[in-house]
Amino acid sequence: MTKNARALEEDLSKARLRLWLRLLKLTQGIETDLRRKLREHHGTTLPRFDVMAALARHPDGLKMSELSSYLKVSNGNVTGIVDRLTQEGLALRISVPGDRRAQIARLTPRGRETFDSMAAEHEAWIDTLLSDLGSEDITTMATLAERVLAKEGTYEHP
Amino acid sequence: MTKNARALEEDLSKARLRLWLRLLKLTQGIETDLRRKLREHHGTTLPRFDVMAALARHPDGLKMSELSSYLKVSNGNVTGIVDRLTQEGLALRISVPGDRRAQIARLTPRGRETFDSMAAEHEAWIDTLLSDLGSEDITTMATLAERVLAKEGTYEHP
Repeated sequence: MTKNARALEEDLSKARLRLWLRLLKLTQGIETDLRRKLREHHGTTLPRFDVMAALARHPDGLKMSELSSYLKVSNGNVTGIVDRLTQEGLALRISVPGDRRAQIARLTPRGRETFDSMAAEHEAWIDTLLSDLGSEDITTMATLAERVLAKEGTYEHP
Repeated sequence: MTKNARALEEDLSKARLRLWLRLLKLTQGIETDLRRKLREHHGTTLPRFDVMAALARHPDGLKMSELSSYLKVSNGNVTGIVDRLTQEGLALRISVPGDRRAQIARLTPRGRETFDSMAAEHEAWIDTLLSDLGSEDITTMATLAERVLAKEGTYEHP
């Protein structure tokens, strides 16, 4: 590699690092904001919101193990959260026929209703936070994010 | 608002939500990967790396309170981390003249060296993870991220 090409690669590497730090700041800032809003408006936490979102996407219910793998990043105590949702009548646990140890969790109609109203508000918050991005900006950014995600997948499971 | 304009706004709101979920997946995926790599390659944690990074950016040292505010998101136990760095000879605490309760933490030369080698590897990991983004892509994405960050700032402190 020529000296010049090496310098260009170094610049690119620094630029990627700066972009990463910026993306991290962006998502952490929004996440902090969402946690605060969920707490203040709904007395709830992000892991609990995420559990309800996963259950809402699976009306037939999810095994506890599936639910945990969906939420591996938000790091909440999935069992504890489902226990509390069940106590509050927002979710229920159903035994899996033929597997004595497995249980499926799903939202009750009231749980679904509660989630829907939080989700609508959540969408409106995100809409406001990203309101300076127009349709074209969104497509551009999503396409670039998708390209990194594809790479990330390759990289994690070589 | 006409029916058509409302439908367009709804589409845009959904697109922003999808973009947000994608950005979250991207940063969480990379962060999970970095945590694993820091653990496996350096037996260290992300909060500890972040503390060392903050100290490395401030060669004259940082007050413990300043350090905490830098790291409010990574949620680590700053005091515990600095204690351990000090025990290992990577950082030291210095009393602030005229303020008996305040202490400044800074890296020792060996701490700086340790951090520099981790930081170089960290940059190389990010470079690989974002390698499918060229110079122009990086500028585009950084500009859009910056626009959201500017908004976010306004929004958090109205």
